[in-house]
Amino acid sequence: MSNNKNNPTIPEDHPRAQSLHYRHVLVDGMEKKIVTPSGLCAHGRGEAYDYILGETTTDAAENAMEAAVAMILSAKHPVISVNGNVAALIPKEIVDFSNETGSLLEINLFYQAPGRLNAIEQILRDNGADKILGLNEKVSVKLNNLSSNRRIVDPDGIFSADVVLIPLEDGDRAEALIESGKKVIAIDLNPLSRTAQKSHITIVDNLIRCIPKMVNIARSMKKMKAEKIKGIKNNFNQKKNLDQSLIHMIQYLQSKI
Amino acid sequence: MSNNKNNPTIPEDHPRAQSLHYRHVLVDGMEKKIVTPSGLCAHGRGEAYDYILGETTTDAAENAMEAAVAMILSAKHPVISVNGNVAALIPKEIVDFSNETGSLLEINLFYQAPGRLNAIEQILRDNGADKILGLNEKVSVKLNNLSSNRRIVDPDGIFSADVVLIPLEDGDRAEALIESGKKVIAIDLNPLSRTAQKSHITIVDNLIRCIPKMVNIARSMKKMKAEKIKGIKNNFNQKKNLDQSLIHMIQYLQSKI
Repeated sequence: MSNNKNNPTIPEDHPRAQSLHYRHVLVDGMEKKIVTPSGLCAHGRGEAYDYILGETTTDAAENAMEAAVAMILSAKHPVISVNGNVAALIPKEIVDFSNETGSLLEINLFYQAPGRLNAIEQILRDNGADKILGLNEKVSVKLNNLSSNRRIVDPDGIFSADVVLIPLEDGDRAEALIESGKKVIAIDLNPLSRTAQKSHITIVDNLIRCIPKMVNIARSMKKMKAEKIKGIKNNFNQKKNLDQSLIHMIQYLQSKI
Repeated sequence: MSNNKNNPTIPEDHPRAQSLHYRHVLVDGMEKKIVTPSGLCAHGRGEAYDYILGETTTDAAENAMEAAVAMILSAKHPVISVNGNVAALIPKEIVDFSNETGSLLEINLFYQAPGRLNAIEQILRDNGADKILGLNEKVSVKLNNLSSNRRIVDPDGIFSADVVLIPLEDGDRAEALIESGKKVIAIDLNPLSRTAQKSHITIVDNLIRCIPKMVNIARSMKKMKAEKIKGIKNNFNQKKNLDQSLIHMIQYLQSKI
């Protein structure tokens, strides 16, 4: 647990000790240029939705994870889009998931800043990443329909991917990926965000709980026959699943009245 | 609207343009030492709860504002606790409210850092603040029951206050104020936070919408007789009001299924 001038020691009995711990991981990540101020705001939004979810992984999220892993294992060219918060919060876990599923890691940043790409590359390398895409801006190509900084994608990565996993992604980016014909899997604690609503599969869960579970799911699922994996993927109902997450939140709020 | 390296121009048609604007105000505030990284996370949480509230001021919030203003106008020594986010987001509005109600402004910070107190003082002065408490640490006294940095309060301010308005405050602090016998009014977008649950009056609304409305309420209410103001204060039912905010959020989520 980090403990610098911005991060006084977290009392062990604090009702939000774990939440505070990851908040401080992000603050440290900002000092290392991995995380941006906007990334901290985004994390805060995630915290709030997680509170309303009861800080638990729902059955709906488990089902979405299974469908997501099935879609990734069935893909020809799956790519994981990594941003600053993902790299700061779960660097080892995202590398493990990449290795376990044969997905490529591509760094995709909304906010470019000198040294930022290198800092994110370094934390991924320190956690065992071998091949990392999105590092060479000279050979990157633009994805249509995006006016933001994050329009640039790697020709060997997201540009040619059939399935893209976007853990924590903004709505513009998610929509551009979908409009370009890719299958998009989102991890988003807000079931009503554009990213959550527009993606093909949305896992409404905390990244920190979710990715380790997805590593385990991938390990088991790889032993299954391709036909069975395809069945898991095809049986998933995105609208129904999103509604289940919303219902879970509604029930949580109702239990507090 | 700010536009520096962290803040690319916000497209006017962005569905969250206003939300992005205030996010960038806070990021600028961080560069000026007014806001801390944890303050950005807290703002993000607020954004999420505001989305679930439909980004609107509810009838419940209006009622809570009236009761809050009545309580402040009926108080002998009302004090407004100002933190970094409040100073960055609504410096002029909080000074106006202080002047309109005869409440004292006291700067209270969780995270101390060199220059931070001065930066917050400066933005309040630039927006018309005359008397500001909490500036002289040498004469500050400790409030019981608080282990955090923010245990220190001004002997002429919160320490001797009968009513304290805490726009954006953490649970530990709010509880310590209540345990020390003060009447506490919170502004908190999360109706389930400890601050919201433990305070005597909680306004579940966005500070940015709320404080200008409270300035107007104070202007009207000051023309009323003391007995009528007391009645407004005494008729307020905190538990019922918090439940109304929760019900509003539940209905918002239900409307999305």
